[in-house]
Amino acid sequence: MPKYVFEFTEGGKDEKDLLGGKGANLAEMTRLGLPVPPGFTVTTEACRRYLVDGAVPPELRVQVTRALRALEDRIGRQLGDPEDPLLVSVRSGAKFSMPGMMETVLNVGLNDASVHGLTQISGDARFARDSYRRLIAMFGRTVLDIEGALFADAMDDLKKDRGITDDVDLTADDLDELIDSYKKIVQEQTGRPFPQHPREQLDLAMKAVFDSWNTERARLYRRRERIPNDLGTAVNVCTMVFGNLGGDSGTGVCFTRDPASGKQGHYGDYLPNAQGEDVVAGIRNTLTLDDMAERDPASARQLFGVMRRLETHYRDLCDIEFTVERGKLWMLQTRVGKRTAGAAFRIAAQLVDEQLITLDEALTRVTGEQLARLMFPQFDPAAEKKLLAKGLAASPGAAVGAAVFDSAVAVKRHAAGESVVLVRRETNPDDLEGMIAANGVLTSRGGKTSHAAVVARGMGRTCVCGAEAIDVDVRTRTARVGDVVINEGDVIAIDGTTGEVFLGDVPVVTSPVVDYLEHGLDATLAGADGGGNGAGLDEETADLVRAVDTILTHADAARRLRVRANADTADDAARARRLGAQGIGLCRTEHMFLGDRRVLIERLVLADSAEVRDAALEALVPLQRGDFVELFEAMDGLPVTVRLLDPPLHEFLPDRTELAVKVAVARERGEDTAHDDKLLAAVERLHESNPMLGLRGVRLGLTIPGLFAMQVRAAAEAAADRITAGGNPQVEIMVPLVGSVMELHLIRDQADTVLAEVAAQRGVRLDIPIGTMIELPRAALTAGRIAEAADFFSFGTNDLTQTAWGFSRDDVEAAFFAHYLDVGVFTVSPFETLDAIGVGRLVRIATEEGRAARPGLKIGVCGEHGGDPESVHFFHDVGLDYVSCSPFRVPVTRLEAGRAAIAEDDTAEGLAGPR
Amino acid sequence: MPKYVFEFTEGGKDEKDLLGGKGANLAEMTRLGLPVPPGFTVTTEACRRYLVDGAVPPELRVQVTRALRALEDRIGRQLGDPEDPLLVSVRSGAKFSMPGMMETVLNVGLNDASVHGLTQISGDARFARDSYRRLIAMFGRTVLDIEGALFADAMDDLKKDRGITDDVDLTADDLDELIDSYKKIVQEQTGRPFPQHPREQLDLAMKAVFDSWNTERARLYRRRERIPNDLGTAVNVCTMVFGNLGGDSGTGVCFTRDPASGKQGHYGDYLPNAQGEDVVAGIRNTLTLDDMAERDPASARQLFGVMRRLETHYRDLCDIEFTVERGKLWMLQTRVGKRTAGAAFRIAAQLVDEQLITLDEALTRVTGEQLARLMFPQFDPAAEKKLLAKGLAASPGAAVGAAVFDSAVAVKRHAAGESVVLVRRETNPDDLEGMIAANGVLTSRGGKTSHAAVVARGMGRTCVCGAEAIDVDVRTRTARVGDVVINEGDVIAIDGTTGEVFLGDVPVVTSPVVDYLEHGLDATLAGADGGGNGAGLDEETADLVRAVDTILTHADAARRLRVRANADTADDAARARRLGAQGIGLCRTEHMFLGDRRVLIERLVLADSAEVRDAALEALVPLQRGDFVELFEAMDGLPVTVRLLDPPLHEFLPDRTELAVKVAVARERGEDTAHDDKLLAAVERLHESNPMLGLRGVRLGLTIPGLFAMQVRAAAEAAADRITAGGNPQVEIMVPLVGSVMELHLIRDQADTVLAEVAAQRGVRLDIPIGTMIELPRAALTAGRIAEAADFFSFGTNDLTQTAWGFSRDDVEAAFFAHYLDVGVFTVSPFETLDAIGVGRLVRIATEEGRAARPGLKIGVCGEHGGDPESVHFFHDVGLDYVSCSPFRVPVTRLEAGRAAIAEDDTAEGLAGPR
Repeated sequence: MPKYVFEFTEGGKDEKDLLGGKGANLAEMTRLGLPVPPGFTVTTEACRRYLVDGAVPPELRVQVTRALRALEDRIGRQLGDPEDPLLVSVRSGAKFSMPGMMETVLNVGLNDASVHGLTQISGDARFARDSYRRLIAMFGRTVLDIEGALFADAMDDLKKDRGITDDVDLTADDLDELIDSYKKIVQEQTGRPFPQHPREQLDLAMKAVFDSWNTERARLYRRRERIPNDLGTAVNVCTMVFGNLGGDSGTGVCFTRDPASGKQGHYGDYLPNAQGEDVVAGIRNTLTLDDMAERDPASARQLFGVMRRLETHYRDLCDIEFTVERGKLWMLQTRVGKRTAGAAFRIAAQLVDEQLITLDEALTRVTGEQLARLMFPQFDPAAEKKLLAKGLAASPGAAVGAAVFDSAVAVKRHAAGESVVLVRRETNPDDLEGMIAANGVLTSRGGKTSHAAVVARGMGRTCVCGAEAIDVDVRTRTARVGDVVINEGDVIAIDGTTGEVFLGDVPVVTSPVVDYLEHGLDATLAGADGGGNGAGLDEETADLVRAVDTILTHADAARRLRVRANADTADDAARARRLGAQGIGLCRTEHMFLGDRRVLIERLVLADSAEVRDAALEALVPLQRGDFVELFEAMDGLPVTVRLLDPPLHEFLPDRTELAVKVAVARERGEDTAHDDKLLAAVERLHESNPMLGLRGVRLGLTIPGLFAMQVRAAAEAAADRITAGGNPQVEIMVPLVGSVMELHLIRDQADTVLAEVAAQRGVRLDIPIGTMIELPRAALTAGRIAEAADFFSFGTNDLTQTAWGFSRDDVEAAFFAHYLDVGVFTVSPFETLDAIGVGRLVRIATEEGRAARPGLKIGVCGEHGGDPESVHFFHDVGLDYVSCSPFRVPVTRLEAGRAAIAEDDTAEGLAGPR
Repeated sequence: MPKYVFEFTEGGKDEKDLLGGKGANLAEMTRLGLPVPPGFTVTTEACRRYLVDGAVPPELRVQVTRALRALEDRIGRQLGDPEDPLLVSVRSGAKFSMPGMMETVLNVGLNDASVHGLTQISGDARFARDSYRRLIAMFGRTVLDIEGALFADAMDDLKKDRGITDDVDLTADDLDELIDSYKKIVQEQTGRPFPQHPREQLDLAMKAVFDSWNTERARLYRRRERIPNDLGTAVNVCTMVFGNLGGDSGTGVCFTRDPASGKQGHYGDYLPNAQGEDVVAGIRNTLTLDDMAERDPASARQLFGVMRRLETHYRDLCDIEFTVERGKLWMLQTRVGKRTAGAAFRIAAQLVDEQLITLDEALTRVTGEQLARLMFPQFDPAAEKKLLAKGLAASPGAAVGAAVFDSAVAVKRHAAGESVVLVRRETNPDDLEGMIAANGVLTSRGGKTSHAAVVARGMGRTCVCGAEAIDVDVRTRTARVGDVVINEGDVIAIDGTTGEVFLGDVPVVTSPVVDYLEHGLDATLAGADGGGNGAGLDEETADLVRAVDTILTHADAARRLRVRANADTADDAARARRLGAQGIGLCRTEHMFLGDRRVLIERLVLADSAEVRDAALEALVPLQRGDFVELFEAMDGLPVTVRLLDPPLHEFLPDRTELAVKVAVARERGEDTAHDDKLLAAVERLHESNPMLGLRGVRLGLTIPGLFAMQVRAAAEAAADRITAGGNPQVEIMVPLVGSVMELHLIRDQADTVLAEVAAQRGVRLDIPIGTMIELPRAALTAGRIAEAADFFSFGTNDLTQTAWGFSRDDVEAAFFAHYLDVGVFTVSPFETLDAIGVGRLVRIATEEGRAARPGLKIGVCGEHGGDPESVHFFHDVGLDYVSCSPFRVPVTRLEAGRAAIAEDDTAEGLAGPR
């Protein structure tokens, strides 16, 4: 016969699978000899058996009877005894804490008879009746599924009738009347009276806990969090102790350190003469633990001892619930406590200092996301704000500035020293300069992976997108939200961490952690380097910065993955280098064709002879070379991967529909359309119904003679310039969108010729490897062949995700991603976290087969996933050499790469990807 | 020391690797004791060694010397002896015949001295000089790389000077003068005199053969045909025999059966008093072998004996070159002969009848493409035609009819009994009814996988696409080619096998093979069933039809793959069934939403409430049900796979740019745009920059409540109708574009409910499996999981190719496919033949892992590749259960499936896919 019931004296904290989190910790505290009210736990196995059978297994009934008898014997009372009743609480407790499940029924064992016994032993008639009416309401709501508002209304009616506003002013007689009303509600709603038999109450409550495992909300939660459906929940049955038995009683919650700041000390709330639900309800103001120590020094002293004991035992911040019943302290629950990002770092570093944990363990106590949160500027929480609208939190941070509606104005005002926020319906590559100039970007359309969101995240710009309440009119340079009109120049503030948009100025607090990351520990502690306040840091902040330094330094020592940045400009590269980047993993050359240079692409596209085309290409060489020289200088001595042109050429031309409308209208008006006609013809010629799957990347390079050769020449000449100037450029050339080794062979043939020419002309030695993106499933599946012609691989996981799943980042997010997240097809967007079993399998295949064909092949990643913590663990696991991410994510990735290295047994299975 | 030289007496026909095709067959004939002029073969191994070393290996020189001595001893003459010269021919001979390689140098051994010896022994001064001038020109062109026109010009100048037009009118003296001119050309072009030393001639000729292995044209050819670069070529050195030594000499080519019709007998051309190159040049009219038998009965009798001997030996049609030198027959070459499609079938069947080969072997002697060629109607070759333009041969056949420029007119004229050809710039789903009504489709834009091409091939309609010389103006209902204007109603003719477009009527010949395939052998032989001429078939045609029957019947018995058809209508299904389809593998339901029903989709899209949406869906049920009932009736007892809606909804709406222009122009004119504004808003809302990667397939089904349930209901009710009517519907429901098992689970939940409801309402048992397309790499890579929720898999290899390669069928073909084929990235479009190592690997993974998770899982293919012979072999090899192809391809696929089954050792390696 399986053992379905464990007394608290029988288990321990490592038995969460069987006893649930709460039960395991109650057993652990009991084992430590701490004052836990006696009780027992019904196992998750019993729950599973119940769910399969659809009925309570008979063995369980028997075992509960035995455990209850033992409990009654130990306490010396019987459950619901009319004279001297034992009362118990019944709580669910799964392995993982899970919203949507039944929480608690208190005071089980009270009935029309035992309520009098409780009056006797407590000497408090009001307390006993209040306990009984609480039981009926709680039991009615959670076990019998009665609308909670019915009980609340009855209470309100009574208070109105009595002319009072506060529950505590109800007398014992009032409560008797309320008990009758409550019982009537139960009879009306269920057709049966409130169960008077104590054991029936207990059995029904246990069954309700089991059933709550399968509520829709719980199922949905599990699906999203990838918690298996067949774990089941445990049930904890615990002797009631009462914090509401007078001034020498009370109840509280405490933490062994400050969960907000991480500061050492005792933190918590204490409510004298109260039960737990009163603390949650916030009816009265709570006291601090210091106040408690003054009121009840003995209990407080005992509590502090327990806290120290638990923290030393759990070796982490503990979150504790306790009750004092007539001067006696009881521990009701403990668990490792949640904390803020800053607290996580400080506590981890403190515990290392206290020699409670190792540096490796400290790394497991913090996450990249916590570090990221510490890096973003934030609005001063104390400031008054006028909320205007809410969009998607696309790229975190806080930005304030004058609203501008196009790139040109953004650049102009920024150059004049003004802070601006770029406001658009949606952005496109043309807006890039404006986005660079702006403090933040706000769009009314598009999802978290829209152009605005991706580019903003890439450059660390604050971004709120898809704020649909805002009606942007670029022509009139205004935006409307209802009656409110934002004109160009009006100051707005956007919070990329919450998605909020505010009207007017809001003070922003910059992050000292970023100062540290960019300028080092000493400069930051001295407050010399733009720390915001100019003076030294306050002690708490200094402690935080030191904690980050301790842990990040260890991560750097531990990690095996190198971390590069995606950067297209010298400024971005320099910043990335300050933030710890060990090279550039992706320099997108298409950004060098925007702005004024766009006209050269137009000339290239409209070229009607090889001469015109070659001249247009030739004109681009010095421009690209100049860009490269700056970039290579900023990254001197570190690798810089230059990706040849990737997007289709029509991306540099006007939108087809807009142009067609313009031409039609102009023609209708009898205006001259000669130039636009020619342009429209070119746009039509280049039009593709699916540009993502069209003439781009290596296909473009093979189709337009000289295009890639021009780019290779510019990069080679720039390298030669740097060498001549005494520099050490480490250039790598990367071919995008390769699907077949033949494509790479053909491009290599061209590139090798150009490199040899430039080396000869300039009299320098150019050692420039040529590699390929692996961003098509076909490339991954034939990586063994492609490796023949590639000096390195770099996974373009964005495109690989798009093609493996057959959906485009631009189109699908708004259309169905939200729904897919709702119904659990995705637990997270596969564009955010790598889909391990699908896309990840391609990464694994390509890595293994590429290296088999070419041992030691250098392999990296340069998609958005390079900056995603979970994905970084996956890339570590697969054995890549480096990941490349946006400059701002470099520290996060360094940390996660370190975490991955010390958690070698973390497998891809752990990834919360789609099934 | 490797053996680099083999005398003809030493090898055999199975040594093609070492001796090349020509050398192996010369050795084989020698071994058979046939009269082959003595000679030797320099091996491919010697060539490879030469290519690696860049020089002739010394061992080769020695071995050639020895072989030459042996040859001289046997013949009793010495190479180039001034008195009595041995002359030899030098010919290349690789394992595979290969254009671009050096062919032949004749008469090696002639020089200024030995030309006189030849005069002596031949007694013909003119012959000797003609032989010498031929050597200089041939040697000059092929060995010394001199422009051939220079020799031709010198000949022309001389003839002009002599006032003659025919070479044979040149006298011996004239030829002496020509020899001087030729030698001067050699001196001028190479700076050296024409080599007089016979052995030098031989060595240079051999070296030239070796070098020709690596000409650009040969390399390109090998890249395309996937012939490895390191095979090398052999060189055959053969004693010259002369067919131009008078009336008792001659040269000819013959076949052991008629390569055009397959008829038994002796076929060939004989040219008395001529050398081989004269036959090729076509200077004089050739004689038949019967004529030859009259002129030279002894040689002819001997030749016929050799032919019989060779055919029996090779057990196949042989293609033979021979020469008669002064009454003595010499065999110069033989190989298995090329033949027409009809001949291939007839010869294979004849050889079975003659018990020379088995039925299995007969299957290897014919191909699906040959059967396909026999099925297409063709223009009467004898008819006069006026060529108008040339496009791509997109879907074979011959179509004649009145030119129409839109679908409505096509339908109207077709209904009135007129034959029409639909002429469009390009087609879209709106043109479907017009394409059905038309005999053929002609477009001025788009490649071989454009919409027009794919749909036309699918329905077996003749199609020429991308005929760019034709300027189609739909508004004026005209098309122009230069000055020629085609008005609506003008008769045009298009040849889908050649891509030619003709003006005016051209008589069409229908295929008796199709009659046989649709109506069976007896009906066709009787000529009763629309055989075209109404009377019985002529004996040749009857023989062909019987041959096809013999071989196809055997293929059906041998094959393991079942063959289904892709069909959306009852008519197509019925035809497919007649052609041997064993079910419908793909019924696309989107075609049921076109035409008048389009308005319902518009209503669905514009719906602003759930009620309107549901009503629009409800209205579609009876329409779809009606379509299904007809289809299930046509396929009674056979499986019909119904695919739920796949394309994005905006495909059913007007084009965005056209609509935007229409609205802008109307607004400019002050016209009312209310309805179009609303429509445009919907179009904009649904607009996707990459619809192929957008909201389609299962995503649509999960996003639009009730859409898939409506389709499932229509299919289930149709099945119930058929059951009630005593039929046996075998319906399968297929979910498109699944990427995750969760999607399939969610759709199954809906579908199972609907199926249960319909079964209950109608009181029938519905056994309808629910399966999924595997058309995304992610689906293939997670097939083991998807199999949990799928009753069957069907590979959508079109989409799988698109996503694995990241290019869209619609866009890329025109843009870069032609270039990729030119430079050898593709040997064939991966949309035509499955890319085995990329896309095919996904097919293999999904099949293995799907079956591992669900043993016995039924798996098929329903992409275009299902009708492609090479791909069918691959699918057989992977172990699929069935392939589904367009109805017209069913017989082809039956044949290829049979061929695949008897060639089990055919591996995927053999696929001519991209690298």
